[in-house]
Amino acid sequence: MNVPANLLPHLSGRVLIATHATPDGDAVGSALGLAAIVDALGGRSQVVFPKLPGVFDYMRSGHDIVERADAASTFDAVFIVDCGSAQQVADGVESLPAAPVLVVIDHHRTREPFAQLEWVDPTASATGVLIGELGLAAGVTLTPAIARPLWCAILTDTGSFRYSSTDGRTLRVGALLLEAGANPWEAAQSIYESFEPERQRLLGLCLGTLDVRCDGRVASMHITREMAAAVGATMDQSSGFINYARSISGVEIAFLVRQDEEIVDLWRVAFRSRGTHPVDAVAARFGGGGHRNAAGCRITGDRDEVTNRVFKAVDEIGGLR
Amino acid sequence: MNVPANLLPHLSGRVLIATHATPDGDAVGSALGLAAIVDALGGRSQVVFPKLPGVFDYMRSGHDIVERADAASTFDAVFIVDCGSAQQVADGVESLPAAPVLVVIDHHRTREPFAQLEWVDPTASATGVLIGELGLAAGVTLTPAIARPLWCAILTDTGSFRYSSTDGRTLRVGALLLEAGANPWEAAQSIYESFEPERQRLLGLCLGTLDVRCDGRVASMHITREMAAAVGATMDQSSGFINYARSISGVEIAFLVRQDEEIVDLWRVAFRSRGTHPVDAVAARFGGGGHRNAAGCRITGDRDEVTNRVFKAVDEIGGLR
Repeated sequence: MNVPANLLPHLSGRVLIATHATPDGDAVGSALGLAAIVDALGGRSQVVFPKLPGVFDYMRSGHDIVERADAASTFDAVFIVDCGSAQQVADGVESLPAAPVLVVIDHHRTREPFAQLEWVDPTASATGVLIGELGLAAGVTLTPAIARPLWCAILTDTGSFRYSSTDGRTLRVGALLLEAGANPWEAAQSIYESFEPERQRLLGLCLGTLDVRCDGRVASMHITREMAAAVGATMDQSSGFINYARSISGVEIAFLVRQDEEIVDLWRVAFRSRGTHPVDAVAARFGGGGHRNAAGCRITGDRDEVTNRVFKAVDEIGGLR
Repeated sequence: MNVPANLLPHLSGRVLIATHATPDGDAVGSALGLAAIVDALGGRSQVVFPKLPGVFDYMRSGHDIVERADAASTFDAVFIVDCGSAQQVADGVESLPAAPVLVVIDHHRTREPFAQLEWVDPTASATGVLIGELGLAAGVTLTPAIARPLWCAILTDTGSFRYSSTDGRTLRVGALLLEAGANPWEAAQSIYESFEPERQRLLGLCLGTLDVRCDGRVASMHITREMAAAVGATMDQSSGFINYARSISGVEIAFLVRQDEEIVDLWRVAFRSRGTHPVDAVAARFGGGGHRNAAGCRITGDRDEVTNRVFKAVDEIGGLR
């Protein structure tokens, strides 16, 4: 634990907290956990979420959450958590009221520094781990208000403690959060068990399109607008579906071909790799990009033809040979 | 940590280890973790698994695993882990060679004691937590051989740290296991990402039968032999499907109606509750039983009629009114 001491004095005034657009569990949990730490220290926190996904509603209570900070408000400090660049801040960092100090707390490896004070630790499995350590360094007694959002942060960014980033440090902070009142079943139900029936039906249709090729090492699935309409679902309810293809025994690379909402012959292709074979190079072949294990691109054409082109590209440059 | 000191002397001789039939992750992980502790203490372990599910194969290496212990072999101690009664021992406790001492290590709440020496702690989230504490009490340096199976035990019995049984103690032992070489991604891939394509296709068909009633509070799905045959799957590949119905927002009780493999008009009904409303009473109405959150029964009849009878029973006695 190596919390920069110069962060601590900024926690007890009027503090505005923001994070990246379309915040995930680590962003929301870290922001709300930090807000509760500020409040516990006698400061006054406000959190900016232009859009807070519904699954995180269970953590709202007790917080001053706004969609946009009032430009006329004054703050002693602005904290940005879990955010790798000024552009990634929801609505941009310039949309936030200025303050005497801008502080960043983050764990991303690839990033563009943008604050006077940056505490960046890419060895932390989640920004929530850093916020937990910050609270301890500040001498705050961990309360349920602090522990519940930080548990969400750590749970989600480690994939429920399944990703390789999960380490002893993660679990040591996690243990303190549970002992301070974080509720694992409440979090799991809210985050992982709040699906709409339409989402489950769309998943059913999507699984029906499963196509495994290349000696069982590459799997694809697709979703058309017609399929979504048939079950009353929207395309954005298909988040996470691709994992059902990747999680097949022997499959090294999986991809999901999803029809664009507006343009009939435009297809959004999402790739996932189990870790051994990189997919960013495959996405790059079609003008896309991403990470070694998760990438994406857009391709125009007929669906079958698009799928065949992607299978061919994966076979050629996916490193499977 | 309150390991009974009288267990420790029995760890360093020739030790036979067994667990319950159709072992789950906690049973397999606890047995193999204990075996590695025995080996580390200079003893010699043998583990009995009449049938070891394939997802746990990644932990086999380095262990003396047999389907049935040789009746002529002699052991200094027999340890039974994660097992609530003599009958639940795979093939029955009487199938094992006798030894000077029979030791049980378990965390089940409801059980029938059957050994001279029983260490039962129902406050532990997994038997694997107890085995980890046993290793520490025995002064063993935790190695990857000890840590990997114990991580599996804890991961699986806490539902990837999502169940309410997950506590600070669980995570403290978990932290030590990770620092000793347990690999969270290896475990997650082996245990949660080793599905057959047929299983995913059957899940797709099953989701297509989703039926939500009672103001969105009860959901059902079904699987017929015809559906399984259509995708080349077997009924036992449907393990866990019911969670897709339970995990719908607003659903309190879910049930899955599954056709028997032999008898056309016999249906196996599995119930799950989110926690507020008990399902064992509903299962009992049809001569079945189980726990508050997970129960089951068998009903003979036409599928539609069976489903309607169950919906009616849930509505009447599921505590939803």
